[in-house]
Amino acid sequence: MPDRSEIAYFGAGPAPLPTPVLEEASQVLLNYNNTGIGLTELSHRSPEANAILSHTQTGLRRLLDIPDSDGPDGYQILFLQGGGSGQFSAVVYHLISVWIGELAKTKQQGLDAEVAKMRLDYLVTGSWSLKASQEAARLIGPEHVNIVTDARKARDDGKFGSIPSRDTWKPTPHKDDVALTYYCDNETVDGVEFPTAPSGPNLVADMSSNFLSRPVDVRAHAAIFGGAQKNVGTTGITIAIISNRLLPPHATLAEPQLLRKLHLPNGPIVLDYPTISKNNSLYNTLPIFDVWIAGQVMQRLLDQSPDTNTPRITAQQATSNHKSTLLYGVLDTYPETYTVVPDASVRSRMNLCFRIRGGDSAAEQAFLKGATQRGLLGLKGHRSVGGIRASNYNAVPVEAVEKLAKYLTDFAREQ
Amino acid sequence: MPDRSEIAYFGAGPAPLPTPVLEEASQVLLNYNNTGIGLTELSHRSPEANAILSHTQTGLRRLLDIPDSDGPDGYQILFLQGGGSGQFSAVVYHLISVWIGELAKTKQQGLDAEVAKMRLDYLVTGSWSLKASQEAARLIGPEHVNIVTDARKARDDGKFGSIPSRDTWKPTPHKDDVALTYYCDNETVDGVEFPTAPSGPNLVADMSSNFLSRPVDVRAHAAIFGGAQKNVGTTGITIAIISNRLLPPHATLAEPQLLRKLHLPNGPIVLDYPTISKNNSLYNTLPIFDVWIAGQVMQRLLDQSPDTNTPRITAQQATSNHKSTLLYGVLDTYPETYTVVPDASVRSRMNLCFRIRGGDSAAEQAFLKGATQRGLLGLKGHRSVGGIRASNYNAVPVEAVEKLAKYLTDFAREQ
Repeated sequence: MPDRSEIAYFGAGPAPLPTPVLEEASQVLLNYNNTGIGLTELSHRSPEANAILSHTQTGLRRLLDIPDSDGPDGYQILFLQGGGSGQFSAVVYHLISVWIGELAKTKQQGLDAEVAKMRLDYLVTGSWSLKASQEAARLIGPEHVNIVTDARKARDDGKFGSIPSRDTWKPTPHKDDVALTYYCDNETVDGVEFPTAPSGPNLVADMSSNFLSRPVDVRAHAAIFGGAQKNVGTTGITIAIISNRLLPPHATLAEPQLLRKLHLPNGPIVLDYPTISKNNSLYNTLPIFDVWIAGQVMQRLLDQSPDTNTPRITAQQATSNHKSTLLYGVLDTYPETYTVVPDASVRSRMNLCFRIRGGDSAAEQAFLKGATQRGLLGLKGHRSVGGIRASNYNAVPVEAVEKLAKYLTDFAREQ
Repeated sequence: MPDRSEIAYFGAGPAPLPTPVLEEASQVLLNYNNTGIGLTELSHRSPEANAILSHTQTGLRRLLDIPDSDGPDGYQILFLQGGGSGQFSAVVYHLISVWIGELAKTKQQGLDAEVAKMRLDYLVTGSWSLKASQEAARLIGPEHVNIVTDARKARDDGKFGSIPSRDTWKPTPHKDDVALTYYCDNETVDGVEFPTAPSGPNLVADMSSNFLSRPVDVRAHAAIFGGAQKNVGTTGITIAIISNRLLPPHATLAEPQLLRKLHLPNGPIVLDYPTISKNNSLYNTLPIFDVWIAGQVMQRLLDQSPDTNTPRITAQQATSNHKSTLLYGVLDTYPETYTVVPDASVRSRMNLCFRIRGGDSAAEQAFLKGATQRGLLGLKGHRSVGGIRASNYNAVPVEAVEKLAKYLTDFAREQ
């Protein structure tokens, strides 16, 4: 019957949450703010819910320095449902609507021929960006999807684990043809993280698994999204940060009938950014409990960071870097026991993927068994790639990482 | 600083939950089943999560007598995100894919002409079925949407509040042209509930607000869906019950490229029933905490109902009927003070919508103020229609309803 304090949990997501947040959550579930009503029961249109929404949005703005303005330089913070996988579709529906809408302003004739040129540029550097590119092909046809780079081709083993150098990339030559440039900032399954962001027209980033672990140049992006269940909160909500340049009145969208005429899909209203934005994420019932949890997690990050930090997330960045450096240090000390899967230059600070004795099944089983005995849980690699994965999300305490480092050392010495 | 026990909450959704379920939820948030890991943190692919999923599905099958088989007569129980509004779109994407897929099996030429005949039949009896029909028109074009009945036309005030008699309905004449027949079993905003289910080809029901309040003839439906946040649980999950006849291998779906060619949309993968079904609702991260809550609510309903009941939901039905009969009885006793909005024959047992002194604003304000003073909360009508709405969901105790009945009596006598 282990207590929370006896367990160090390195699951890849859902991820651990800070115990004080969960302790407070267990109170508000029954009675929020002395209303006599629990937080999952409270109306999403109540003043309390509005205050929670606003608190969480403000926290995120301060942590990531997200421009707050109604003008074209501002960004909207939206809460949706459906996770990162839902956003794979949402960004496609929306960005093609903007691309067509803007084109249709000046061109009434020959739109079909123009649309044939439309491209969505995908950087495929791991399992999740691959899935996102496949979803785009399913929705609008593979002829519109340009794979800028496929990282599997850059490695001898044909697996993900590197980010090919930029001079090998093949972006769509004509910038005006590009509806979006897509990348996944951190690949959870493969342990690959972009050291610095790529660039391209209408840059879209999936930050599901490294959100709030380092500063982001929001202004360089058209859209950033992430499921909340890693560094931010619980599975129920997905965060999307959208440039006002992509929303009315700063952008013109294609009418539904025009999209149909051009053989392009209309997305569901619950993933429609303009609708969600116009309603401040309250178009339909929003899981306010999950928004509250994210707000509490953000508040803790703010409280840990001096006011003078800009953006305020830099304090957490230092901690994340410290923890991952510690673990990679041990792994690199025992190269006969441990092989880190990704190339050294693109190692994820969030998901540390490694093999034991070159992927020896018995050794990896023994490692996991010993880990469990020490209360080190959630270390099994993703079922599609195997091996070991230690996820180093924000709520994993330094002490847990130190415990794991010690076990890694002990295990290697015993080999 | 009211305690939960001092508050009677009649909100229209999110709705109250049983206090014992929330008390247990507050424990499992921190440590589920002695794993040392909280339930929002636990992997959706863990054995614990699988057991929760299975427990909730089994509970629902027993409560509503949902056929369990892999054959064409069986039904799948799916958990999705995005609420009822997400399902407005999901059923359209899916049912047109089935309609086209089946057609394409026998017809390669002239599909365009056939598709022109495709119709989605909507019974518009309130705000939510209206929205669903509008979403269908947005996704596939208004020319494919047939409004079988618009209940506003049946009332002198031009508002929702009735269900026109069947002999006035205008279903699509040719049954084979009908991809779906849609109705909303209970209209939350307008307080209108179908006394008995309608019929039609590929019958789809939105039961978001009266789920688990009475038996349903599941076998008469192609699909039934509902957001969980009224009678079932929390906002994070949506339940869909889908006939195997609409899923592979019993149904043939249209390929994405065929839908595009026919100017029809492909929906997002997170709303794709075959994908969600094939993965037993674990295609992407499922909010297991919300599934657990729904499972606990269902377990309580089962525990309250004798084994000999078939379906087991009949015990709850008796309670729901008792509570709503009590309230309507008081409202009808004081016709000079209270006017129930919907026609007597279609009054909702879940959402009791009424006006005070014919909609007198001062009187309604006074009523709400007095209610708040007595700890009777959540009684304000939907912002689009005004008035008073008392929602009588499953977790509203009989004692709360009796308190409200007493206040209704006292208030009327003071007028």
